[in-house]
Formats: sequence, C-alpha cells, structure tokens
Amino acid sequence: MATSQKVFGHIAGYPKGSAFSNRPAASKAGLHTPYMQGISGNGADGVNSIVVSGGYKDDEDYGSHIIYTGHGGQDANGKQVADQSLSDPGNAGLVTSQLRGLPVRVLRGSKGEPEYSPQSGFRYDGLFQVTEHWSSIGIDGHRIWQFRLEELNKTDAESWQPPLPTGNANPGVQQSTVTRVTRDTKVSRSVKDLHNDACQVCGIALKVPGGTTSEGAHIRALKKPHNGPDTPDNVLCLCPNHHTLLDNGGIYVDESLHVRDMNHQVIGPLRLAKGHTIDLAHLEYHRSLWNV
Amino acid sequence: MATSQKVFGHIAGYPKGSAFSNRPAASKAGLHTPYMQGISGNGADGVNSIVVSGGYKDDEDYGSHIIYTGHGGQDANGKQVADQSLSDPGNAGLVTSQLRGLPVRVLRGSKGEPEYSPQSGFRYDGLFQVTEHWSSIGIDGHRIWQFRLEELNKTDAESWQPPLPTGNANPGVQQSTVTRVTRDTKVSRSVKDLHNDACQVCGIALKVPGGTTSEGAHIRALKKPHNGPDTPDNVLCLCPNHHTLLDNGGIYVDESLHVRDMNHQVIGPLRLAKGHTIDLAHLEYHRSLWNV
Repeated sequence: MATSQKVFGHIAGYPKGSAFSNRPAASKAGLHTPYMQGISGNGADGVNSIVVSGGYKDDEDYGSHIIYTGHGGQDANGKQVADQSLSDPGNAGLVTSQLRGLPVRVLRGSKGEPEYSPQSGFRYDGLFQVTEHWSSIGIDGHRIWQFRLEELNKTDAESWQPPLPTGNANPGVQQSTVTRVTRDTKVSRSVKDLHNDACQVCGIALKVPGGTTSEGAHIRALKKPHNGPDTPDNVLCLCPNHHTLLDNGGIYVDESLHVRDMNHQVIGPLRLAKGHTIDLAHLEYHRSLWNV
Repeated sequence: MATSQKVFGHIAGYPKGSAFSNRPAASKAGLHTPYMQGISGNGADGVNSIVVSGGYKDDEDYGSHIIYTGHGGQDANGKQVADQSLSDPGNAGLVTSQLRGLPVRVLRGSKGEPEYSPQSGFRYDGLFQVTEHWSSIGIDGHRIWQFRLEELNKTDAESWQPPLPTGNANPGVQQSTVTRVTRDTKVSRSVKDLHNDACQVCGIALKVPGGTTSEGAHIRALKKPHNGPDTPDNVLCLCPNHHTLLDNGGIYVDESLHVRDMNHQVIGPLRLAKGHTIDLAHLEYHRSLWNV
C-alpha cells in the first residue's frame, strides 16, 4: 500500500466515472488508499488523491473546479475549533502537488454538493490540478487553508495514463499542453506600458527579438473567492519569475512598499511609475492570503 | 486614419460576424484601415488587424487557430521569390503584438480556407492573439516567418470592448484571464525532478512556501507545425524567465551545449543532470526557428 500511495494519475482498469459502494472498495482499487483521511499524500511526495464529500463547510464545488479546504482543526462534529496549518502533511502535500504540477485524483462522495456528487457511495471523477492556494478565516472563525483544484483537460489528463514511462514520441494533434502563453487584459497591458516592461521587483525587462516582454500580475486575483478588480491599481508589471513568486507566496509587498521574500527579508523597494497608482488594500489582501 | 490605425480591440458598432462587401467598407468601419496590405501596424505599435484571404500558400486556417505567413518576398503572382524579414514593419508588428499581448482583429476574405471564410466579401471574425512565431523554409523554397494566432476566449475578448479605459472594478464571474498556471505532462515532471527544479540556464530554483518550482520547457514545441515529441530528451527544466526567453528566441543552445543570448553572447554552459539526455536535433530545430 505504501507503493500505491505514490502512484499518480489514472489507475489502469478504473476510468473516470468508476463507482464504488464505499471507501474500502475505492482503496482496494488504488484510487484513494486511505480509509479515513480525505487527503492521500504528504509534503515530500505530493497528494495523489482526495475525497470530496461535504466534510468541510467551507468547500465549494463547481464541478470542473473545486475550492477544497485543507485538513485539520475540526472537532468530532466537524466544527472548526482551531487554526489549520500548512505543515499538516495533507496540506503540505497539496502545496507540493501545485508546485510540481502533479495530477490529483478526485473522488466524490454522496454527501457532497448534490449537483456534482453521486447519489450513493463514491465515484472517481478524474484528474485535477491544484492551481492555487491561500489562507482565510473560515465560517467557524478559524484560519483555514484552501486549494483551488481544476479538472485537467482531456489531453493533459491522457498524458497521465499508465504506464507511459518513456514519454510519447508521437504525441499527435491531441497533445496540447501549453505553458508560457499569457493573456493580457487591456488593463494589465496599460500597466506594463507604464513600466516599459521593467519588473517592479527586479527592474529587468526580458529582451527577445523584436522587443521586451513582461507579465501583468493581479495582486488580488480576479477569480472567486478573491474577486479582485481588473483595474490598474490591482496590477503589477513583473518578470515571469517574480510573477510566479508573487502568486505562490514567495514574495510579498509590505506596508512601506518594500518587497520581502518568504523569510521576511527585504529584497528592495517596489519600483513605481508615474501614473500607476497601487491600492494598498490589495497588497494587504495578498499578505493575508499568506498569513503575513 | 493614422489614429484609427492604433485602435486595438473591438470597434464599437461592428461586432464579430459583421460583413463587408469589400476592403474599403471594412476600412471605413475602422476594422482594418489599409486598403491593400494584409497587416495593419508596425513594430512600434504592434498590429491591430490582419486580413486572411488566401494570399500566402503557406497559411493554414483551422478556424479558432490560424498559422499566418508574414509579409514580403512575393512577386506579382503571389510566388515567394525572396526571403521574408522580421524587419518588415508588418512582421515586426506581429512580434510586438505577441510580446505585448495585444489583441488582433481578424478579417477573413472569400478567397481563404472555404470552411472558415465568407462566400463573398470580408467578415470580421473577432479578436485573436499572436501566441508564437518562428521561421522556416516555405513551399516556394524561401525563408518565411509564421505567426500562430489563437482566438481569444469570450471573457478575454470582452475585456477589449471599447471604451473601458479605467478597467472593470467588478469583473464578476465571467472574468477569467489566467496567467502563470503551467501544466506538466508526466514527462516534463520527470525532467524537473532530475534537476530538482534548478534552471538549466541559471541554476535558480524559485523558492516558495512548501518547496521550489520550475517549468518544463519543450525545446521543439508539441504543436503543429513543429510536432515535437513529448519525451524527456525534448524537455528542459527552466525558471519561468528562461522559459519565456527560450520560447521567444531570446536565448538558444549552441552545438557545444552553451546557452547564448540573442546577440550570440555566451551566457554559460547548459546545466546537465545525470539521467537526462537531450536530443541535439531538437536544439538544432529550435535554432532554425530563429534563423541562428
């Protein structure tokens, strides 16, 4: 069982939609090996499966997109009575899965959101990816950590079919994994123009044939539950590295507009540009996500 | 007209699907101002519109995704008789549009790919984004530059509705511009593991709470027309900055496995890891895309 806990991706013989009458049956199939825990994995290996079954009242299930609450801090009645911690193995594992781009098998149980859950037992609902995490104060008044899981598209999910150990020499037209394409809104474009593509953290504007390039980073994300505005005062012009760090809590901007790393060391002042006002409340919101 | 040539995004009163009997009518509407040229724009401003009408035999139209050949090198009969250059204003403008994430209005004419083109005249087919460009030897035996244009999704396209100069303070659930999410295949994941997330160019592994992060960069892209394999020997472990530079021709790897910038200056040796073999043919293919 220790081995199957480290198997990532689809399990041979159990396609998406496979139904199980109970948790032991799903465990035997290798889809989610723990009998009780909702999260299978740890910080070192990442999480290979979760069960979504209504156990946390802060969860939100939108079908192909789930806001999943981390593990810990509940009493026997499912009430949140203490803060959750990122050092909990399951929570640390979900961070690892996000950072490493690992696929997470999602099983839904009958006690979950009725629209997307099976009427009885448990169902394997395919591979998802952790795309974001943050902390907030949950419904019961304690700190929780939440993880956004988004279902992999068909072609990305297929790349995790077993066994495929040596890659696919002829991926064909279905293979569509895409990275590095960024889309600008008109707003983020305007901010990048004010900075001439120079990163507001390090000052670098990446040089490529034809010009320079940068990324427009929303300080408070647009998506639920953050609901940040798509306005210039919520956008920073960053190089891809500092965009990645900002989005993952590797850097933050303090109240005096200095950029600090995750150990709170000052990297330098946030570089400003005439005409680009930044809303301090969005920076404060970003800090609250990382509990700093 | 000089002003309208710099208008990016949708044009008020002419939604996607608007039909025009000829080019002057489309010009008067402000959708594509030049009467003759297929590309409207230049290197400084970027391209705000193109016409796809079968003028270049190397074009490929897949509807929501177009492989568009740059301008230049044709004789009066449309035969390619000379190499194209990225310094051509239209071609330089398409690079600028890619780097700046600018939206490009696409008009199709009746001489284009029958499946996606109007039966007569010209039709405004909405906003696309240049997501990639490369050079190759075209059907007629001369160097051409090609640009991949992909249609913006509905929400991204809506962000370019006029006038919206100050952003959208309440973007709501439709707003879905996403950046910085990368998806790994099993193969790119394996390469990143071999390097412990250390960039093969600069050695940096970005530190964030919970671990480190990097990106798996395909040397020869998977998509058409590149058709690279999804195998470890076609993947590099890179930081986001060097991934962006690799994908846009800002760096390349020479025959002696040294990384060079776009001015051919050596940055350093490509960092290797035991167990990670790189196919030199893929590096050669990457160089050919940038004509180095």
